[in-house]
Amino acid sequence: MILDKLQEKVDLKTKPIGSLGYLEKLAIQIGLIQNTLTPKLQKPTIAVFAADHGIAKEGVSAYPPEVTYQMVKNILNGGAAINVFCKQNNIDIVLVDAGVNFDFSDNNLFVNAKIAKGTDNFLYQKAMTKQQLEQCFYYGKKIIDQLFTSNCNVVGFGELGIGNTSSAAMLMSYLCGLPLEDCVGKGTGLTDQHLQNKLNILKQVKRFHGEISDIKEVVMTFAGFEIAQISAAINQAYKRNMLILIDGFTVTTAFLIAYKINPNVIKNAIFCHLSGEKGHYKLLDYLGVEALLNLGLRVGEGTGCAIAYPIIANAVEFLNNMASFESANVSNKL
Amino acid sequence: MILDKLQEKVDLKTKPIGSLGYLEKLAIQIGLIQNTLTPKLQKPTIAVFAADHGIAKEGVSAYPPEVTYQMVKNILNGGAAINVFCKQNNIDIVLVDAGVNFDFSDNNLFVNAKIAKGTDNFLYQKAMTKQQLEQCFYYGKKIIDQLFTSNCNVVGFGELGIGNTSSAAMLMSYLCGLPLEDCVGKGTGLTDQHLQNKLNILKQVKRFHGEISDIKEVVMTFAGFEIAQISAAINQAYKRNMLILIDGFTVTTAFLIAYKINPNVIKNAIFCHLSGEKGHYKLLDYLGVEALLNLGLRVGEGTGCAIAYPIIANAVEFLNNMASFESANVSNKL
Repeated sequence: MILDKLQEKVDLKTKPIGSLGYLEKLAIQIGLIQNTLTPKLQKPTIAVFAADHGIAKEGVSAYPPEVTYQMVKNILNGGAAINVFCKQNNIDIVLVDAGVNFDFSDNNLFVNAKIAKGTDNFLYQKAMTKQQLEQCFYYGKKIIDQLFTSNCNVVGFGELGIGNTSSAAMLMSYLCGLPLEDCVGKGTGLTDQHLQNKLNILKQVKRFHGEISDIKEVVMTFAGFEIAQISAAINQAYKRNMLILIDGFTVTTAFLIAYKINPNVIKNAIFCHLSGEKGHYKLLDYLGVEALLNLGLRVGEGTGCAIAYPIIANAVEFLNNMASFESANVSNKL
Repeated sequence: MILDKLQEKVDLKTKPIGSLGYLEKLAIQIGLIQNTLTPKLQKPTIAVFAADHGIAKEGVSAYPPEVTYQMVKNILNGGAAINVFCKQNNIDIVLVDAGVNFDFSDNNLFVNAKIAKGTDNFLYQKAMTKQQLEQCFYYGKKIIDQLFTSNCNVVGFGELGIGNTSSAAMLMSYLCGLPLEDCVGKGTGLTDQHLQNKLNILKQVKRFHGEISDIKEVVMTFAGFEIAQISAAINQAYKRNMLILIDGFTVTTAFLIAYKINPNVIKNAIFCHLSGEKGHYKLLDYLGVEALLNLGLRVGEGTGCAIAYPIIANAVEFLNNMASFESANVSNKL
């Protein structure tokens, strides 16, 4: 009913039918989420979840583990890519410490949701305990409830954590049933040789843990605290009727967890960009979705969400403010 | 020299090397155009050139010819897609009447550059005289000089004109030496049957005019007044060191004319989106360029430029305002 009305409203705008392409799809999706012909985007916010990873000790990243806390500080100081894009595009940022190996001073962007100073190394044991996973779910939900209470109805998810593409690759391989070769990529920029090393280590991880069928067990075994918190935040954002912006590879694996728990979350999600990271294309294909942008981005931090946001805002604007054939006295199709 | 310095500046930002993908390419291109490590985008403006086409009498469009003037009025009244996107993205608009079959009242967006009330029908004669072509070149240059004087250094080009994808297809076919089948598409939304009719008519046009080798002769024979004016405006924007934003299929054929006259124009051009119109992909491929966005847009009016603009602005912002590894105390690659 509302879908038909939204489609009609789009089709009566002064443009050839279908000629705004992906923007028409976005306008209709957002209208459906908000159940209105006049949707509004309020207080757009990107939540960057950061955490350290036990597996980072194994040399699976091109950068040393201390870069996690250094980049958190960079974000808190306003110097990272995500700060620049959010400022330019009028988006708020919150930086969630889900489990970084550092004690940060308080800051107006900072949210303390620290579970521990990094996960355990899943080469030898599970990344987190059941209790830690429950804490992650608690914090993810709580952060969304706070954003919702502050009048935000569109939230983008970003991540930061040296080693987390290894975590993401393990999650993708287990939850999609795909070989590790399809899921493991160069992350922040490994050489071909170091990529082979990363793949070998993750194959060893797979042999150590063997088959795991339970979703929560998979998450406990391989997720980072940031990934687990994002997955819970996505589920809660869906419950709160919020528009959900998904960034690159690692955030999409957090989405995958949320989706396995509640497939309806896909209705509220926009996949903002196709990452340069190898596994992302197959993961989006597994989910049956297409990314909005393909700009070769592979920074993380939610940068893809921030860059895509103006296009999403434009989609809402045309639905609300463009003239119809009738109101503008323009002749329709012959 | 400046290229090396720009590349170094990009590479020392707090992100993995190359990880901002297409945005890094844009930042460097704009730095090179302005010959500085700190480029600025000033008074971004989209110039929408509108004109009527003699060939529109032959039923080559899904919309009647009066839609040209009706849509000009819609833009002057602020109701078209381009108005909505420009307003949201802080871009100025000028609407250039290059040759619409209507007398418009004055308006703050309106620029009078009317050559005649539409071109002649190139099914039977050349679209314009040599004198009219020279007038087009005069106006195109003049409009850019006015924008330049008003402190604008980034100009996007849009078009409006029922029948102009036929004009564009003829130009592409002659200037690229490609068969009409590769150049003719559904425009504003022809059915398969009407597309076949359009192709048949344009084949008849080709038989009537035969071989033409001189570029200006090709332009006189097939261009619209809006296309010819845009081509001259592009050449002048290059001379004025401006950043040039290219929209969809029809504007790209105007770019093709400018490029045949001065291949250097490509240095200043950003191809904002890949249009849904059939010939566009091959035309971009002929020019050896890749489009920034692929959103299935086929509205024209410069909408692709308007939607791409925030991404271009983000590219400039990261170059100017993102921290370096050194300034942020972040460890660089292992």
